[in-house]
Amino acid sequence: MRTRVTDMFGIALPIFAFSHCRDVVAAVSRAGGMGVLGALYFTPEELEQELKWIDDHVDGRPYGVDVVMPASYEGADFAPEELVGRLRSMIPDGHRAFVEDLLAKHGVPPLSADAEAGRVLLGWTDATARPQVEVALRHPIALLANALGPPPADVVDLAHAHGVKVAALASTPRHALKQVEVGVDVVVAQGTEAGGHTGEISTMVLIPQVVDAVDVPVLAAGGIGNGRQMAAGMALGADGVWTGSLWLTVEEADTPEMAKRRILAATSRDTVRSRSWTGKPARLLKNEWTQAWESEDSPGTLPMPLQFMLVSDALRRIGRSDATELATFPAGQIIGVMNQVRPAKDVVYDLLEEFGEAVTRLDRLTND
Amino acid sequence: MRTRVTDMFGIALPIFAFSHCRDVVAAVSRAGGMGVLGALYFTPEELEQELKWIDDHVDGRPYGVDVVMPASYEGADFAPEELVGRLRSMIPDGHRAFVEDLLAKHGVPPLSADAEAGRVLLGWTDATARPQVEVALRHPIALLANALGPPPADVVDLAHAHGVKVAALASTPRHALKQVEVGVDVVVAQGTEAGGHTGEISTMVLIPQVVDAVDVPVLAAGGIGNGRQMAAGMALGADGVWTGSLWLTVEEADTPEMAKRRILAATSRDTVRSRSWTGKPARLLKNEWTQAWESEDSPGTLPMPLQFMLVSDALRRIGRSDATELATFPAGQIIGVMNQVRPAKDVVYDLLEEFGEAVTRLDRLTND
Repeated sequence: MRTRVTDMFGIALPIFAFSHCRDVVAAVSRAGGMGVLGALYFTPEELEQELKWIDDHVDGRPYGVDVVMPASYEGADFAPEELVGRLRSMIPDGHRAFVEDLLAKHGVPPLSADAEAGRVLLGWTDATARPQVEVALRHPIALLANALGPPPADVVDLAHAHGVKVAALASTPRHALKQVEVGVDVVVAQGTEAGGHTGEISTMVLIPQVVDAVDVPVLAAGGIGNGRQMAAGMALGADGVWTGSLWLTVEEADTPEMAKRRILAATSRDTVRSRSWTGKPARLLKNEWTQAWESEDSPGTLPMPLQFMLVSDALRRIGRSDATELATFPAGQIIGVMNQVRPAKDVVYDLLEEFGEAVTRLDRLTND
Repeated sequence: MRTRVTDMFGIALPIFAFSHCRDVVAAVSRAGGMGVLGALYFTPEELEQELKWIDDHVDGRPYGVDVVMPASYEGADFAPEELVGRLRSMIPDGHRAFVEDLLAKHGVPPLSADAEAGRVLLGWTDATARPQVEVALRHPIALLANALGPPPADVVDLAHAHGVKVAALASTPRHALKQVEVGVDVVVAQGTEAGGHTGEISTMVLIPQVVDAVDVPVLAAGGIGNGRQMAAGMALGADGVWTGSLWLTVEEADTPEMAKRRILAATSRDTVRSRSWTGKPARLLKNEWTQAWESEDSPGTLPMPLQFMLVSDALRRIGRSDATELATFPAGQIIGVMNQVRPAKDVVYDLLEEFGEAVTRLDRLTND
């Protein structure tokens, strides 16, 4: 198959796979697509290790790194050295009490002293993402992606100076235009059905609008889990597809067992767009956590990055407890049809085979 | 083009057009698709007139009628003669006061005595839909569609006895299975981006699930406004497309001028899924009406059919006033790209032409 993105990256298949797991990234790139490692949860040192591992296991195929530099967040004008302290002081006591109450109700124990309680994850700020960019650019990456809006123009220039292409996720045609203005090479147009941070417009409605708005190649994201959906995304005008949730249940994925079981059992109605994770709307597994934040007792969510600072310890405590009813995580609507565990390579080949069948069927309908 | 639905109905194009306007219905059927008249707002006598007009203007081409027989609603077990009175008594005074306050704030005058104040529209009940079915079956219709879930089994049998096929709208694969169990011939799988009553799952995610769940032909609905979207819907496995919002701004449509202007100016973010119209979630134009029902002062919405009984006079008053900021109506996300007024026939031909281009492009990408 040949599109503008297969040409741009020298890949066989226009299939991009976002994953926080290095094994998945390497497996998809080896299978002819493009794995993209989500850097968010890694310190710069950890990211260095992950990328070194990928370099050693990707057989020289291109891969990418995804960072999160949101266009707007609380504390954007604070000095880096005082960022954490000042942000922490902005979290109201009532919010802390709500979280503690919720955990107590579900019998979630505190973290043990050695379980890195209080390690503050600040992924959703420019200040924490830049060191990740520096690490990434020391590796032979082909793509730097930004998950929340247009990346800073100087970061785009820096990537280009390293011969690295830049992608950014857009949920409206207006976002896409802003991204192209700062020099983005590929727009990932992501519909509301996607897991993680996501807008309101569906993939079906969004893709043609973005394709018509920009001259650069567009990847269709949100709701892409099989070859028919890949064909649909490209019928809408995209040059390829960007997938995420699809890789949570592959053999290679280091997704926690509990989460894998929940995904395999879920229907497409078991996700919800919620601010309870990061403060910006993100599609998550719907459960007692997301419902608690919608309840009458809820103090409301805090803006990014305060919400995740507020809840990150709680989410870690839940993950180590038996309170699986509170364990939420980003997940798109396609989890409704993810019912088995397979190697990433098989998922790639199935996408391709079903894509071909869908195109053949369309052809036949048209010529009859 | 040839699919299971073009064969079933003897139509040239698998394009179904839902409209409350008889002119649109006749125009689409004459252009080779299938117009489907929404009967909801008509008394049986009015419906008789509309269908007579269509019979006289459709050049013998097939057309359909869409009624609303919801699977569940308040008062389903009341006797028809006491239905209105008993339902009326179930509307709390606080809700009436909220509506009156809202209208007063926006300076909306009362209806004049001759403006049929108090005409109670009860469309969303089995009791009011059955007389519409009887009228419809006296005409040479090809399709009877039910907009809210599986129609009663005896209505399906009655339609079949008249040689009329039956369709029903589904927003989950489970709904679709129930519909096929009662004998439905065509499932309209409708994604969350659609206008009017709609579920949570997007078209991209929903269509393959429904196609895999049932043996009957599936129409893709929700987000279908151009030929690329038609190709995408059929790449997902559908045998045709079901469109609605697309026809609100065609030349033939009797959509109020104000609503046409709002649609032509809207973006895809200007709709919202809200219970403020009928009590069940429906995608509407987002404005001060929908926001008022989400506000802290809101008493909450009432279950179907009480909500529409509560608000129908208010909506009529708003429609005759200058308070356009309160005037809402069902609209899908595709209104973001509906920017011009054209004859229905041209819209049909453009769908077909762009569908062909999309299929040709997919073919070329695949064979390169």
